[in-house]
Amino acid sequence: MVPPFPLPAPMRRALALARAAAAADEVPIGAVVTKDGAIIGEGENRNRRDCDPTAHAEIVAMRAAAAHLNDHRLTGCDLWVTLEPCPMCAGAISHARIARLYYAVGDPKGGALEQGPRLFAQPQCLHRPEVYGGLAEAEASALLRDFFAVRR
Amino acid sequence: MVPPFPLPAPMRRALALARAAAAADEVPIGAVVTKDGAIIGEGENRNRRDCDPTAHAEIVAMRAAAAHLNDHRLTGCDLWVTLEPCPMCAGAISHARIARLYYAVGDPKGGALEQGPRLFAQPQCLHRPEVYGGLAEAEASALLRDFFAVRR
Repeated sequence: MVPPFPLPAPMRRALALARAAAAADEVPIGAVVTKDGAIIGEGENRNRRDCDPTAHAEIVAMRAAAAHLNDHRLTGCDLWVTLEPCPMCAGAISHARIARLYYAVGDPKGGALEQGPRLFAQPQCLHRPEVYGGLAEAEASALLRDFFAVRR
Repeated sequence: MVPPFPLPAPMRRALALARAAAAADEVPIGAVVTKDGAIIGEGENRNRRDCDPTAHAEIVAMRAAAAHLNDHRLTGCDLWVTLEPCPMCAGAISHARIARLYYAVGDPKGGALEQGPRLFAQPQCLHRPEVYGGLAEAEASALLRDFFAVRR
């Protein structure tokens, strides 16, 4: 399938989380972790609120999912996020053994998959998820554009 | 200076944290964050104990330091860690605006600085710390070798 197609529910939830982040004056990115189709962890950017340099949406969602499963690995789980992950988050995705990664839009400035270090293509990389990008490009990029338009 | 020289106190503390991790059956890596010479955050690998795929020593130490400073950035702070950081931790170091990074030994399998993605050399990288590697190669590599020798 190529877009447009009915947006899967986890990505719709990730977009809602991104909008909630914007409302809290955080960079509008949201993420959810699913297992067997059910959401088991979710997160939005919380760097400023939590005084935590690592609190990107993906990290928050994966930590919540791992706590839910009582396991440090998310084997068989999928991650849905509104922006292409950065190197920190892509590294965490690999450590967590995420099975499938779905993201809404690529990030030419900070993405680590399609550009820059292309982490999952590095021979060092011990675990690569299946990756599906571009699921909701227009909506996710509009959220980011609108957020930064009033702040720069 | 080149090794051997008197090992700085923060690296001695990071090595002690690495030994504590091994005693808890976690991969023996330790890290501390200093500001103006004082330790303001420390961590050891806690993946299994905390059921957290992101709980590498560096992440634990930086989150603690950021909470201590009540800031999501560690501007002007230094990070001392017993192993060359992986992509996840190197990305977090950049997000946190760490000023100087000191590590005990390089990691040919998983390091992201001297090898693999060489994250701080990527044109995308927005903040690069000064990096000083190889401060305690013999001690840090012996810790890891002994840990894995009885487990593989």
